[in-house]
Amino acid sequence: MSDLSQIIQFIRKEFNHSLKSFHLPESPKYLYDPIRYALKSKGKRYRPIIVHLAGRSFKSDPDELMKISLGIELLHNFTLIHDDIMDFDDTRRNMPTLHKKYDISSAILAGDCVFTISQLILISMEHHSIKLLKKYNEMVLEICEGQAFDKEFESQEKVELDDYINMVKKKTGALLGACLCLPAIMQNESSEKIEKLYNVGKALGVAFQLQDDIFEIFGDQKVIGKSLGSDIIADKKTVIALIANNINSIKWRKLVNEFDGTSLEKIRRFLIKNNIINEVEELTSTYFSVAYKSLLNLGFNQNSEIYRFIKIIQGRHS
Amino acid sequence: MSDLSQIIQFIRKEFNHSLKSFHLPESPKYLYDPIRYALKSKGKRYRPIIVHLAGRSFKSDPDELMKISLGIELLHNFTLIHDDIMDFDDTRRNMPTLHKKYDISSAILAGDCVFTISQLILISMEHHSIKLLKKYNEMVLEICEGQAFDKEFESQEKVELDDYINMVKKKTGALLGACLCLPAIMQNESSEKIEKLYNVGKALGVAFQLQDDIFEIFGDQKVIGKSLGSDIIADKKTVIALIANNINSIKWRKLVNEFDGTSLEKIRRFLIKNNIINEVEELTSTYFSVAYKSLLNLGFNQNSEIYRFIKIIQGRHS
Repeated sequence: MSDLSQIIQFIRKEFNHSLKSFHLPESPKYLYDPIRYALKSKGKRYRPIIVHLAGRSFKSDPDELMKISLGIELLHNFTLIHDDIMDFDDTRRNMPTLHKKYDISSAILAGDCVFTISQLILISMEHHSIKLLKKYNEMVLEICEGQAFDKEFESQEKVELDDYINMVKKKTGALLGACLCLPAIMQNESSEKIEKLYNVGKALGVAFQLQDDIFEIFGDQKVIGKSLGSDIIADKKTVIALIANNINSIKWRKLVNEFDGTSLEKIRRFLIKNNIINEVEELTSTYFSVAYKSLLNLGFNQNSEIYRFIKIIQGRHS
Repeated sequence: MSDLSQIIQFIRKEFNHSLKSFHLPESPKYLYDPIRYALKSKGKRYRPIIVHLAGRSFKSDPDELMKISLGIELLHNFTLIHDDIMDFDDTRRNMPTLHKKYDISSAILAGDCVFTISQLILISMEHHSIKLLKKYNEMVLEICEGQAFDKEFESQEKVELDDYINMVKKKTGALLGACLCLPAIMQNESSEKIEKLYNVGKALGVAFQLQDDIFEIFGDQKVIGKSLGSDIIADKKTVIALIANNINSIKWRKLVNEFDGTSLEKIRRFLIKNNIINEVEELTSTYFSVAYKSLLNLGFNQNSEIYRFIKIIQGRHS
């Protein structure tokens, strides 16, 4: 495994270096200062790592893979900037969100510009760039639709689990799907393979999101590095909240309303006693299994870098 | 001239038909209902007309020209949706702006989606689409920069005329530049010709904007179809306000502060007496002349459709 760890560390370092050396003009400061602020925040770089590991399996040109990974990470940043405004989120990775640090107008414009730069990076690719751009922009449409469903659900009393999962596939999964399938498009792989890889990403998106939802309530505060229970305070619809609400709406509402942001014990007990947390963990495993099976069918064996990286993510604690 | 009028009417009709028959999914309503609302508003369609007239001079395929014009008009809609949020504008073409009719989150997301659809339309073009997409996205960056300078100027006491004109070239002119040069890129014209056409659009952007600024104060309310003086009420920095402020800041501030939205007489008298309106009209003529001269140098004679269409715009009263 140590070999893979070294490769991942190398990718992360090279990616951070590429992003850092990406030239942004000094002026107008109103536009580029907020963008510099947004790009300072580093994140785990899961998406660029997946792009490079997927591309390595096709023996793709690393410089071209770097363009895909930059394009995808910038697109990810764009969606975070705009989603934080839409979702009224004040902090991200322990820093004020862009519209809190500056204002809503700056954040809208910065997001638009980051999205445009992302397109220009993909446009600069040497092979199959029209096919790449088509899939990339279709994927962005799916992300927009996912965000729209998420906003619709906010005002709905009851949301069906299937509808919710479908939303996560679009909002979170589509981008991971692009991480896996854009390198395949670059290598001119078959449409069938490209679509299958895209769907692996969608399954992973659901699995990652479910993991995050569990960490938010059952994680170790020291490891997570942020205050737990913020989804409960914001009364966000997560799969956990959705199942809890479907099982015992009155009790769940009471627990959410009583939660003061300090002890999660009562909520944890309720979720364990009613088998909810088990159910969500099983659902998580199911979606990881879907991803593994598809990868095996596509010819990636258990020793392949991408397979092993997903295993690492499945075993994470934050 | 009647021949050209017929052509323009035909283009407008065909364009409206194409836009109307463009399929938008029913669901999620949170996303597509606001987009349908935004696209209902018709506008003058100057941009699609310019695309088609420029393309006709190159004998371009009308179906491909239609794609460029749809891409550009959708991009224009995207910038209006986001700019209206950033500029706190409540009405556009006598209708509530999107974020007033719905909310800011819906409007941000609708704008992002319209921008993405615009990209997908250009991606579907058959020839030179990578070159087209490159210029198109570089142009969007210029629009973002223009909007950023405009926002910066809001909080500056004094703005130099040159800086202001440069902002208008980016914010308004770049898109008109694309209307002229994207059809040339489609026909694989030389880089030099493409850049020159782009700059014709920038000059036109300044000329059109100056005309609009003048109509806002000296126009006929019945012809303009909206209440005059809204720029004064919002204390917007226009070239008129900028020159007035540079000539006699105290008197101009007094006039702006005293204006109650009814009679523009005092303001008009001040602008005439101090030769300001003359200066702005001369500036407008200068920028139209730059456009005409460049067009002649590029081989478009005075009888060419695009030349004559610009003459029509120069002679407009609203």
